Amino acid sequence: MKNVKHIKIWILKTVVFGILLTISASGYACEACNRLFLKRLLSEQKEGSLVSQQLLATITAQELSAGNNPAWVSEALAENNLIAADYKNALSDMVLASNDMPAASAGQSVARTGGSLPTNHEFIEIISRDKKLSIPETSYVPQNTKPDKKVSISLEEDDVYIGNGVIYKGFTIDGKIPGTTVIVDEGDIVEFTIINKGHIPHGASIHAAYTQTSKYLGKIQPNDSATVVFKATLPGVYMYHCAPGGHAIPMHIIFGQYGMMVVKPKKQYELEKVLNKSPDIELYLVQHEYYSSGKDAMEGQGKPMYTAFNGKLFRYVEEPIVGKPGDYVRINFLNAGPNLLSTFHIVGIMWDFVYWQGNPDNKFIGGQTVTAGPSDSWVIEFRIPPDEGSYLMLTHAVGSTDRGALGLLVCDKNANSGLTLLAEGIKYTDEQMAEYRKKSNRTITPFAVGSPDVDVPVVYGNDTKEVTIKIMGNSYFPKVVQVTPGTTITWVNEDVFTYMDGEFSGIHNVLVKDGPDRFASPLLAHAETYSEVLSKEGEYTYICTPHPYMEGKIIVAKDKYDIRYASAGPAANTSLVWFILVLSALALMIGLIALINK
Amino acid sequence: MKNVKHIKIWILKTVVFGILLTISASGYACEACNRLFLKRLLSEQKEGSLVSQQLLATITAQELSAGNNPAWVSEALAENNLIAADYKNALSDMVLASNDMPAASAGQSVARTGGSLPTNHEFIEIISRDKKLSIPETSYVPQNTKPDKKVSISLEEDDVYIGNGVIYKGFTIDGKIPGTTVIVDEGDIVEFTIINKGHIPHGASIHAAYTQTSKYLGKIQPNDSATVVFKATLPGVYMYHCAPGGHAIPMHIIFGQYGMMVVKPKKQYELEKVLNKSPDIELYLVQHEYYSSGKDAMEGQGKPMYTAFNGKLFRYVEEPIVGKPGDYVRINFLNAGPNLLSTFHIVGIMWDFVYWQGNPDNKFIGGQTVTAGPSDSWVIEFRIPPDEGSYLMLTHAVGSTDRGALGLLVCDKNANSGLTLLAEGIKYTDEQMAEYRKKSNRTITPFAVGSPDVDVPVVYGNDTKEVTIKIMGNSYFPKVVQVTPGTTITWVNEDVFTYMDGEFSGIHNVLVKDGPDRFASPLLAHAETYSEVLSKEGEYTYICTPHPYMEGKIIVAKDKYDIRYASAGPAANTSLVWFILVLSALALMIGLIALINK
Amino acid sequence: MKNVKHIKIWILKTVVFGILLTISASGYACEACNRLFLKRLLSEQKEGSLVSQQLLATITAQELSAGNNPAWVSEALAENNLIAADYKNALSDMVLASNDMPAASAGQSVARTGGSLPTNHEFIEIISRDKKLSIPETSYVPQNTKPDKKVSISLEEDDVYIGNGVIYKGFTIDGKIPGTTVIVDEGDIVEFTIINKGHIPHGASIHAAYTQTSKYLGKIQPNDSATVVFKATLPGVYMYHCAPGGHAIPMHIIFGQYGMMVVKPKKQYELEKVLNKSPDIELYLVQHEYYSSGKDAMEGQGKPMYTAFNGKLFRYVEEPIVGKPGDYVRINFLNAGPNLLSTFHIVGIMWDFVYWQGNPDNKFIGGQTVTAGPSDSWVIEFRIPPDEGSYLMLTHAVGSTDRGALGLLVCDKNANSGLTLLAEGIKYTDEQMAEYRKKSNRTITPFAVGSPDVDVPVVYGNDTKEVTIKIMGNSYFPKVVQVTPGTTITWVNEDVFTYMDGEFSGIHNVLVKDGPDRFASPLLAHAETYSEVLSKEGEYTYICTPHPYMEGKIIVAKDKYDIRYASAGPAANTSLVWFILVLSALALMIGLIALINK
Repeated sequence: MKNVKHIKIWILKTVVFGILLTISASGYACEACNRLFLKRLLSEQKEGSLVSQQLLATITAQELSAGNNPAWVSEALAENNLIAADYKNALSDMVLASNDMPAASAGQSVARTGGSLPTNHEFIEIISRDKKLSIPETSYVPQNTKPDKKVSISLEEDDVYIGNGVIYKGFTIDGKIPGTTVIVDEGDIVEFTIINKGHIPHGASIHAAYTQTSKYLGKIQPNDSATVVFKATLPGVYMYHCAPGGHAIPMHIIFGQYGMMVVKPKKQYELEKVLNKSPDIELYLVQHEYYSSGKDAMEGQGKPMYTAFNGKLFRYVEEPIVGKPGDYVRINFLNAGPNLLSTFHIVGIMWDFVYWQGNPDNKFIGGQTVTAGPSDSWVIEFRIPPDEGSYLMLTHAVGSTDRGALGLLVCDKNANSGLTLLAEGIKYTDEQMAEYRKKSNRTITPFAVGSPDVDVPVVYGNDTKEVTIKIMGNSYFPKVVQVTPGTTITWVNEDVFTYMDGEFSGIHNVLVKDGPDRFASPLLAHAETYSEVLSKEGEYTYICTPHPYMEGKIIVAKDKYDIRYASAGPAANTSLVWFILVLSALALMIGLIALINK
Repeated sequence: MKNVKHIKIWILKTVVFGILLTISASGYACEACNRLFLKRLLSEQKEGSLVSQQLLATITAQELSAGNNPAWVSEALAENNLIAADYKNALSDMVLASNDMPAASAGQSVARTGGSLPTNHEFIEIISRDKKLSIPETSYVPQNTKPDKKVSISLEEDDVYIGNGVIYKGFTIDGKIPGTTVIVDEGDIVEFTIINKGHIPHGASIHAAYTQTSKYLGKIQPNDSATVVFKATLPGVYMYHCAPGGHAIPMHIIFGQYGMMVVKPKKQYELEKVLNKSPDIELYLVQHEYYSSGKDAMEGQGKPMYTAFNGKLFRYVEEPIVGKPGDYVRINFLNAGPNLLSTFHIVGIMWDFVYWQGNPDNKFIGGQTVTAGPSDSWVIEFRIPPDEGSYLMLTHAVGSTDRGALGLLVCDKNANSGLTLLAEGIKYTDEQMAEYRKKSNRTITPFAVGSPDVDVPVVYGNDTKEVTIKIMGNSYFPKVVQVTPGTTITWVNEDVFTYMDGEFSGIHNVLVKDGPDRFASPLLAHAETYSEVLSKEGEYTYICTPHPYMEGKIIVAKDKYDIRYASAGPAANTSLVWFILVLSALALMIGLIALINK
Repeated sequence: MKNVKHIKIWILKTVVFGILLTISASGYACEACNRLFLKRLLSEQKEGSLVSQQLLATITAQELSAGNNPAWVSEALAENNLIAADYKNALSDMVLASNDMPAASAGQSVARTGGSLPTNHEFIEIISRDKKLSIPETSYVPQNTKPDKKVSISLEEDDVYIGNGVIYKGFTIDGKIPGTTVIVDEGDIVEFTIINKGHIPHGASIHAAYTQTSKYLGKIQPNDSATVVFKATLPGVYMYHCAPGGHAIPMHIIFGQYGMMVVKPKKQYELEKVLNKSPDIELYLVQHEYYSSGKDAMEGQGKPMYTAFNGKLFRYVEEPIVGKPGDYVRINFLNAGPNLLSTFHIVGIMWDFVYWQGNPDNKFIGGQTVTAGPSDSWVIEFRIPPDEGSYLMLTHAVGSTDRGALGLLVCDKNANSGLTLLAEGIKYTDEQMAEYRKKSNRTITPFAVGSPDVDVPVVYGNDTKEVTIKIMGNSYFPKVVQVTPGTTITWVNEDVFTYMDGEFSGIHNVLVKDGPDRFASPLLAHAETYSEVLSKEGEYTYICTPHPYMEGKIIVAKDKYDIRYASAGPAANTSLVWFILVLSALALMIGLIALINK
């Protein structure tokens, strides 16, 4: 398989991927560094490796899309015995080829070929078998089936205000974290459209769809959109989230792109039957986490900076949910995670009924909690007791409680009826966000450098001559370091997923965007390292070529308290000083003798 | 809303809250610092902010309750254009007002107004509706209903011996961690009384109560008590715990105040029916965690120092539970957490039946584990097999297993019958505790400074001129630091809950209680910082005004190995030393010349 | 109980245990150090303590088994007022005595006495009662019952290739992690044999056995084997794992010794009934974790370096599982942990049915995830939808996803039918392993020193004069440190389980195996510390006597950048240098005067 022709095609393909990627990266990536990169690549031992090929494709594409020096790139490609690419043809080649390579695409192959939707005529017997079973069929319908409901969401990179003076810089759905709540009925044919309004590829995984979605909704390029049509056959409460493919799926979830989709059952839930009425209060509630570092999201069971119900820290402490005594409350609960366990509980409330995953057939009676790992869901039903006061909602994993996942349900006889609250973050206007950005006292972000009190510079003194920076969860760690001139910095890539290119892969590098000196590392696969000795003083800002939103900082500065070693070799040691002392004393003595003997 | 009158009322209210708070704090807090505080507050830019108002109220109240200088406080209040308070009136105002402000109270408003208990006549139609349903009514009963069972527990701050030579300094219920096991029958009217024998506010949340409890049992002041009456309508195994309000709820759980309450079902559990007898062994078992730092309890999914079944590390390894072959065993299992997941398992045992949350209607058959997040519970039923030997009980999340959550069930044909073990810690006598304290080789505590090998001083050398201390989970981190004179210490408040005053809030500060220099920071809301340059050598012990049990230490000491910079400005650099050498050599040469030329 | 006779017997016993232990340790342990040890022990204040007794027994036994100086040991024992042991008698004494001491054995007493298997005639009435119940009997059968199935597995210490260029050095079953998949039918009499091919004691816990196994399968010595016979009465998916006893049970699980055992139900699973056929694809799937440090496995909810399905990182991304549209898929899913929560999910798939713990009677309908803590299991049933493409399998706790627990199920109309995949790691040939070892770029191991980029040396500069090394999860932390001469190293034992000897206990010490200076600490119980000042430069490699596979390193080296303090006492401080300057200037002046006045 690894013959020259294949490699060429592969490079053409990845060049095209690279072009698309670069639409997003423009503005971030530095051309000078790209050239440096390519030069190094072409002369290096890693030539021909998977990593090198990906690097070549990525940076070549960046050059091209920036439109600066296609001739130079062609030259470089020619030097490397590659035919200069006809990129239009390459694009269609790639799309066609992708149908033959399901494995290589790690679940997210691109099959959007314009008007010709797959109809799967050949699986008609499966479809007909499933229709005749005593259990629901899968969600599969031909893609040209007329939908009952149309849903459309937009994905991009953005910042949001999450309360308590904190701005979160991540990825959003419709400008919100969590994204828009989607509600349909059991049996509905749903047309779900994903619009990429961002600068990097996005996509979607919809847990309510019991059918192939990856090939329709994976790898949606900036300014592109994609659609899937499916039948909502199984009632319940589901997560949906960005899923561009490969390594980017967990990353985009960590960065904030998820929401709730509910498929309302045809069957009545039990308390609806018992009380013979619809819920007085219906609450769609997502518990979720905010990270200030991708590394914190990747290690162990995760270490979020904050947790929240529906986007904002302590949102329903600030604006309590208010109901009347005796009200019938239904909560559609989802723990979006992406990492922690939740045991949802309401002080003073016991469940009348709860339903695992929201399916009315999975009923439990009573209970103080529902336990939900990431992407687990429950429908919860209870009555507000006939005693006014406030009922505190929380996860009983109390570390999370006090970091934001806490709210109030208030029982007040004068409350209005018929409250419905959606499971989505607050969408602020541009003016409001501008105001919040100005007034906030903290910005956190998993992949770049946040506020100085969050991403505190780690200062190494003169004793330290070697510093290791880990790359993990699309973030550098420590994000900001201060070292003295001559320190060796070693980066080690601790991201593990190496099977795809660019945004879809956990392959990273280090590229100085701004600083007193320029350098760029090769792309590093898992556990590979790169070292650089930093001699020039100043502040270095660096990014990752395949994930140009990743950012780290190095400050190289002489230690003002200890400048002994800067100019003149080894420090004065004690022997030397004593030698001087003896010498001086001798000089004094001799001088005195000279004087006396005068 | 923010007009002057409102602010005044608010301050009166918070002053009263503060008074109550201070009853506890007296003995801890330093008046001199309070004065310093108030002075700073009154002259500072933060005046009028939420944080400043809370600070003012808290420290004013401390002054007042200490009875030292009410005149001075009145003066300060007057200077600040506030009318001196008639505190008695303020108290009743506050109580009345609290009914209008459920949001501000974060679930825990105070409604104890003496004899007049709410009867809720107006909700009679709800009560009557619920009685007629096919499902159990809620736990609501009028507070003057005659109880079937009376329960009373006492809460305070205390230390306990937890085995393996370790003393744990935290908060207790009836002097134990976990607290007293409460067992009632389904349908019982329960009168539950909480007595605060401690120095700070406590309270209670009772998961077995499906009715308002917060307004009855929240914010119980030292030397006060409170009672709620409710009907135990839903059978199962429940957690109860201290819940004074707001930020203090998770904190007091973390610090040790929780226990098990079981509502015995009217329905028989399945194995009771199958074997047609009561259990031979009934075990009430709480798995729980001990923390040596509040921070460790707040980050990620928690990092406890120890885990235990019923209070003591490896308790049932030291005193195994002994039964006979064929015995019917029932375990009422609760994971109190407060953070970790448990998958309870017994080597050599499979479950005959388990019941989610302990309700007989939620039955599962077989299985090797029960999975329980914090506050999750199960009833577990099995038979001891007809083969003697020991059966190891553990959580299969093995990190926890080896930190204490391990015990033995021994099958011995000569065992006695009829064993019942309660889910509570061991209550030692004062003499025993004195002995344990003397012999122990380690003390841990989440909020103050434990043994030196636990809260190891973090020593910063001459290279370090800036040190950050995080405040998280009512603890400072690092708890003990050693720095050289002139180092800048910055505290950053990483606790997030800011909606209430004093113990109920995650607002903190730094107040030097003892040390060569005195200083006090303003109260810090979330993500706010405070810096101080420490120049004077010595040991500083500091606390937090709203949570005076919080304690941190800073040792300022010259580095004995490196005293160059202490007295005379910049260090001798190499150039200087070489200059001296040349100078001395020149001196020697000239002296010699003088001598020779004499 | 603690009279002299008992202590003597105890020592005899532990001597014998020690002998057995030492068979494994030979090759590792250093005799010279043992002597040093014993000498120190005999002259030390700890004599008579539990810890000292264990130490004495362990090292005495090592001397004996090495056959080097039994006379010397007898002497030492005699000096210590102990009768020289008749070890053969001691052995049988011990075995007999162990029946009386279930508590001391922490669940794993040794009862293998050759041919005489217990028949438990006295419990015939229990056995007969259980046979008549409406529920399955326990797994108990007399040990001489003729088996339907024979299973045999071999345990040893080994390294395996886990993909992505990483070698894992741990403990294995049949050379694999996870071990061999064991499949039997409900009702089968199973003979399960464990062979210890390693150098330390191993054992087994089999979750599918509802009967005493510990006394049969605990503490199997090297080159020994053990067998238990039981009836598989309850269908489901189970974990089995190494369980030598005490502290070693969690340790050996952490190190890699676990596998899946499935008891196939007589009852049909629901989808089998609905589709009226056997599964087209049956997948046995274990999710599990790899640690680079025992400490990482013991703290909080664990922090693995990698996660995997069936042994290898991203195994089913590299070799996707391929099925046809409409295929009936059954997954026997086990989360072996040993620590993290898994929420297993497949993109594009919803469950038709899932069964808690794999028992057909615990059925749920629909759902997007199954939630499994460590040792939790599910049977999962679904159909591949009639739409080709790839379906991504993952745990939705996304930190784990991207560290290896990710795979592909590919729907391809041309796929073959009838795929079965077992839940075990890949067994490579010796040649393949040699090749992988050569080509790998990283080795991780929980208890010894892995690759330099994993166990990065922690370098302490001149400012640091005291360094603490934690012992936790049978590993030292940091594993490798570099300090300057004269630094005090303090070890603190943070392992807690202290109830047994050697491998079975969390008691540790420090014994320099190789280095410029030799020293050995006493055995440290929980929270005990030991300090040593290291003056001689060079590299020290040290191990733990009871767990000789544990390894740590200390490099003592002068800081080449700062050699001031090495030879001549205190450093030149600024005052001194200024004094020299003045002195020199004076000398110059005097010299000049002498010259001028000449």
